[in-house]
Amino acid sequence: MKDRTLLMIPGPIEFEPAVLQALGAPTTSHVSPEFIETFGRALERMREVWQAPTGQPFVLAGSGTLAMDCAGANLVEPGDRALVLSTGVFSDRFDDLLSRYGADVDVIRAPVGETIDFEAVEAALRDRSYKLMTATHVDTSTAVRVDAERFGNLGRKYGVLTVLDGVCSVAGEEVRQEAWGLDVVLTASQKAVGVPPGLALLVASQDVLRVWRKRRTKVANYYADWTKWLPIMESYEKRITGYFGTPAVNLIAALDVSLGRILAEGIDRRFDRHRRLGAACRAAIGALGLGQVPTSDEHAASTLTAPRYPKGVSGADLLPKVREAGVILAGGLHPEIGTEYFRIGHMGATKPGDLLAAVGAIEAGLRDCGYRFEAGRGVAAVQSILLG
Amino acid sequence: MKDRTLLMIPGPIEFEPAVLQALGAPTTSHVSPEFIETFGRALERMREVWQAPTGQPFVLAGSGTLAMDCAGANLVEPGDRALVLSTGVFSDRFDDLLSRYGADVDVIRAPVGETIDFEAVEAALRDRSYKLMTATHVDTSTAVRVDAERFGNLGRKYGVLTVLDGVCSVAGEEVRQEAWGLDVVLTASQKAVGVPPGLALLVASQDVLRVWRKRRTKVANYYADWTKWLPIMESYEKRITGYFGTPAVNLIAALDVSLGRILAEGIDRRFDRHRRLGAACRAAIGALGLGQVPTSDEHAASTLTAPRYPKGVSGADLLPKVREAGVILAGGLHPEIGTEYFRIGHMGATKPGDLLAAVGAIEAGLRDCGYRFEAGRGVAAVQSILLG
Repeated sequence: MKDRTLLMIPGPIEFEPAVLQALGAPTTSHVSPEFIETFGRALERMREVWQAPTGQPFVLAGSGTLAMDCAGANLVEPGDRALVLSTGVFSDRFDDLLSRYGADVDVIRAPVGETIDFEAVEAALRDRSYKLMTATHVDTSTAVRVDAERFGNLGRKYGVLTVLDGVCSVAGEEVRQEAWGLDVVLTASQKAVGVPPGLALLVASQDVLRVWRKRRTKVANYYADWTKWLPIMESYEKRITGYFGTPAVNLIAALDVSLGRILAEGIDRRFDRHRRLGAACRAAIGALGLGQVPTSDEHAASTLTAPRYPKGVSGADLLPKVREAGVILAGGLHPEIGTEYFRIGHMGATKPGDLLAAVGAIEAGLRDCGYRFEAGRGVAAVQSILLG
Repeated sequence: MKDRTLLMIPGPIEFEPAVLQALGAPTTSHVSPEFIETFGRALERMREVWQAPTGQPFVLAGSGTLAMDCAGANLVEPGDRALVLSTGVFSDRFDDLLSRYGADVDVIRAPVGETIDFEAVEAALRDRSYKLMTATHVDTSTAVRVDAERFGNLGRKYGVLTVLDGVCSVAGEEVRQEAWGLDVVLTASQKAVGVPPGLALLVASQDVLRVWRKRRTKVANYYADWTKWLPIMESYEKRITGYFGTPAVNLIAALDVSLGRILAEGIDRRFDRHRRLGAACRAAIGALGLGQVPTSDEHAASTLTAPRYPKGVSGADLLPKVREAGVILAGGLHPEIGTEYFRIGHMGATKPGDLLAAVGAIEAGLRDCGYRFEAGRGVAAVQSILLG
């Protein structure tokens, strides 16, 4: 499918060979004892990685958008009020999505590159009563991180359900679902969880399940309806079979392997490793004289970096040259500034050597574009952080 | 994940090593030139396999249930009338599913093991006007096949949209979407298409897209909404990128490989191969003195067989013994007769030798259960059909 060119986009990323091997292994029956054990264990491991000891994990075949849709479809009833905190394109999706299920949506939108102003959020919560609010921990379109702990705490303080889109964060950025009072934390397999795309992953709190059980109307979305899936997740975790739709056997086997590796690394060490990779990448970009989309280091993601092109260099020019130098990066995604920046993913199985390779290829590409800088400043900046 | 024990359930099945290799290969970017070509080609190949030259293929990460949901959510508006033709558990799902989107549903239900009485269907179509009707080509819970050509033709005659659930049929049973006038033909990857579970596959006719474009209301399901996915499918087929949710890159690469093999085999040869495998399996079951769920050979599926346990033998007793003899089969699924029968899947990459192995293991299991028969009658019956 690809040669050894390094994939450093914000998902899919490079995956561990052990994960790919599990994915490509001969498929077993979704009701075989081996698979029941694998799926049951993967659900238990999700609870550990999410740090939600009493949470209810859900694993569905689908993309991260399905995980968002699961949260929206199951929580919203027509007329419910929802507050969407937006730091980019993916946060904005919740407006469209929650409205689809009849929510009355207010949006608090940060200027591009800035993070959420929680004073404004608290003012809104004091002003109006909401059933739920959503935030995007790391919006993949801006590389901006939101303070998820404060988000959860505010939800608890005002009795508002909190949905954290952790698509570019879970198992990379620090997330402590239960301690932080987050009701739903969702992600997709192909990001920091480290499994090829195809699984929508979500952990729901017991609080949110209680609210969901009291719905007056049926969930409007058939496939995403927890009524169908909750008994299945409960069965597999009890190591008995259940059936609604055929689980994505191979992807779930790969998920189990990846979650096992994440827990073996240790979740705190993993958060710290991502913090250092993020800091090293930003230091390199700064050392090369490039700006970045996030307006401050304080709220810049650890899982991806969003450098701005220097003057006179375009993405159409730079990215193919970086690819020629051996590394695949992603273009910009935000409609307001799409052509002004690019994106480097560094999460999951990303190693220090990968980051050096990526920065090395960016240096090579910039040089080929005629941009002037001292060769090696980027990679040296990486080392100064990683070895510092 | 599993040893060489043979997987002969009605999906997932045994897959070709080349398909598994594509699945487990290092993941590339969903916007890389290689993947754009792979995805674009897979869409074109679907059109050939479905025999729908002007149809619009959709590939979504999800299970077969999502493919059903896609059809229901996009076609139904509140108050629409729908006719569900039911030959088992999976057909019945359409009642629940279409009702979820506000359809007024009538059901014509065949007795367990019988197929649809199209005289009754035509009477219903004359009697009342419907927007759409659904049928399950092969209901995996009963192994009953419905006459999909007659279904399509009736839809055309009465101006009713036709949705064919081809989950246990497409690329195994004969389906000629466009010639037969079928508006939607859907399936899941893990059946006769021959790819591990995780993809919902569907081809929509231009007629159905025209009706869909004239919806008065938004599609009630966010993730399944063709408004989001149609531009993506069109883009990839034009070999340009599009983005809504991250496509399941590895599964799509595996799909492309499997569709390529299906077309290389030749679709008519493939239908014929499945017909012979089905006939051989039924002959073996008959030769061993066991009954079957389908009440006639005429409407028994080619993709799976549903034998009834002989008197004095239970599934709890037989199936583990068959497994010890090296073959995994599936239990019954229909609520009315769940404990009275079992299921053998023989589709996709199933070889004559696999069928012999399965029947051989069934003979071994029956012998261990104390059932009396002449050893070898089953496997000889397989050979008499396959070599006959």
